[in-house]
Amino acid sequence: MFITSPSNLTYFSGFIPLDISEREAYICITPKHAYIFTSALYSAEVKTYVTDYELIEISAQNTFSKQFTQIIHTEKLNHVGFEENNVTYAEFMKLKKDQIPFYPTDISHLRIRKDTEEISHITNACAIGDSAFSSLLEKIHVGITEEEVAFELELFMRKQKAIPSFPTIVAFGANAAIPHHVTGKTMLQKNEFILLDFGVRYQRYCSDMSRTIFFGKPTKKQIEMYHAVLNSQQQAITYLEDQWQQKKEIIASEVDKISRSYLLKHGYPSFPHSLGHGIGIQVHESPSISPYSSQRLQQGMVFSIEPGIYDVGSVGIRIEDLVTLEKNSVSLLTKAPRHLITLS
Amino acid sequence: MFITSPSNLTYFSGFIPLDISEREAYICITPKHAYIFTSALYSAEVKTYVTDYELIEISAQNTFSKQFTQIIHTEKLNHVGFEENNVTYAEFMKLKKDQIPFYPTDISHLRIRKDTEEISHITNACAIGDSAFSSLLEKIHVGITEEEVAFELELFMRKQKAIPSFPTIVAFGANAAIPHHVTGKTMLQKNEFILLDFGVRYQRYCSDMSRTIFFGKPTKKQIEMYHAVLNSQQQAITYLEDQWQQKKEIIASEVDKISRSYLLKHGYPSFPHSLGHGIGIQVHESPSISPYSSQRLQQGMVFSIEPGIYDVGSVGIRIEDLVTLEKNSVSLLTKAPRHLITLS
Repeated sequence: MFITSPSNLTYFSGFIPLDISEREAYICITPKHAYIFTSALYSAEVKTYVTDYELIEISAQNTFSKQFTQIIHTEKLNHVGFEENNVTYAEFMKLKKDQIPFYPTDISHLRIRKDTEEISHITNACAIGDSAFSSLLEKIHVGITEEEVAFELELFMRKQKAIPSFPTIVAFGANAAIPHHVTGKTMLQKNEFILLDFGVRYQRYCSDMSRTIFFGKPTKKQIEMYHAVLNSQQQAITYLEDQWQQKKEIIASEVDKISRSYLLKHGYPSFPHSLGHGIGIQVHESPSISPYSSQRLQQGMVFSIEPGIYDVGSVGIRIEDLVTLEKNSVSLLTKAPRHLITLS
Repeated sequence: MFITSPSNLTYFSGFIPLDISEREAYICITPKHAYIFTSALYSAEVKTYVTDYELIEISAQNTFSKQFTQIIHTEKLNHVGFEENNVTYAEFMKLKKDQIPFYPTDISHLRIRKDTEEISHITNACAIGDSAFSSLLEKIHVGITEEEVAFELELFMRKQKAIPSFPTIVAFGANAAIPHHVTGKTMLQKNEFILLDFGVRYQRYCSDMSRTIFFGKPTKKQIEMYHAVLNSQQQAITYLEDQWQQKKEIIASEVDKISRSYLLKHGYPSFPHSLGHGIGIQVHESPSISPYSSQRLQQGMVFSIEPGIYDVGSVGIRIEDLVTLEKNSVSLLTKAPRHLITLS
């Protein structure tokens, strides 16, 4: 198997690319060997962090193609998988020219079930997110901008030696009706919701959480909407718990349906996104918890449950937690309170 | 032309993807129309920021494939370019199935020469980098860690409403001998070099700069090494100026050679990276200033000049500035002082 994607590079070899838009290294795992290919630019890093792979330095003279072809011949490999979701068309055409027996292969299932160590990494990332959220609450005041709120969250992460796992989303009032609002210069006013969607990357693993709090005094209708989202999320979690305890099969689309139909039944619109997504080295990975996902949820999977209500021009509410299926139970990895928090 | 890469999406439509590892939108420019395809998740954003494209919302029912095929037929398109360096093998196979007349196309040359507005954006990003550097100097002290130094630089950027254009590299002493050292917990000691390589992203455009300063009192040999790097860089800049003024052709590999051969001539090793790279919406884009690049440097190109000396186990020095070829002159966009700064 020939591996090129930054996330799989990290997963298999431990090598953490500095810039995921560059091709810093490749790995190739054969029945007999594990090789890592990199240029002189990264070989010192590789020597330090990747000790159980054989390092092959590539250069303009000793090209990847030349050295890889050599390995294919020496090891008599007649079937080499490549990541079809990562290798570009141009790269594929180049590989094809070398007459390497390449076959498109999807290896995303290899990372789908997390082991104890991985779950512990994700749990640590979640704990930093929870603390960032609770320490933020005392800093909210009239006139603070979305960007400033995002900055406070990210500053907290940095102080814990963590970084954001994606650009923090902060949306005040009607801005929150856009599920992927770009955090901007809007200033907080009295009596509006604040939607926060942020994640932490800590020691390679990601967290992701959303909370919607109220600044001021919510109306009865606003409280009802909040509870509709919270109940919609809880319905999905309870369903997971029930099925899991009874050792029944859990199909991803069914979980999505529980949450989505709860909102529809109570007169709210459906949300324009999946109920959830897997998470690990990447913020979004397999499984997908969507109306179209026939994936079976299994032990060790870690995924988000994040229903929302969006009413363009007026309001947006989303609550997102990370859930994992343990041997005998369903656990929430994010622990921040989910009840409606009102500030003033 | 069918456009999928986040950087070209931004360049052509102004849409700024939140997460570059996701497919948030596609654009397609035909002789008669400009379309942007996105899901309900991003359509509100698109409506706000992308006003001169026709929005086509894609969903599980109204798939991209269905709607795109429709356009191909209506407009009688028989040749649709796609970005061969961005579309993955799996995506290509899916497109192929729809029998859309797709042809691999490289459009990187379209962004290679920057217009006045783009150069002004890059100049602004460079100015923030320069200020971050100068404000950092007073914060350096014995015992500060590489991570803390990186944090100070990035904190400064954030206060200016900018973000790092790539993870900041800070390397103390022998760590700097690794060109892409991972910034860590090493503490600063007296009498060593500090290598800083960082960039700013401000209003979509990137800067990139490296400075190597000395903490303590450098030896004669250390001062000589620093000047060798500085002279090597200046040789390349002077060559650019001379050729440009005389309106002579400038081949990228020739510029690399000037700088590299200067170091070799003075008894230093060659550096394991290119002399420079283009920059714009991406930190690394065309042209490449390397020994293998036959690209001709032209007006409006913006690129780095960054020679270095690396002696594994002992020292690393790199000086990097951004240069642009203006109508009648060669300009440095980074303005931070290049002489050897010693702190104590």
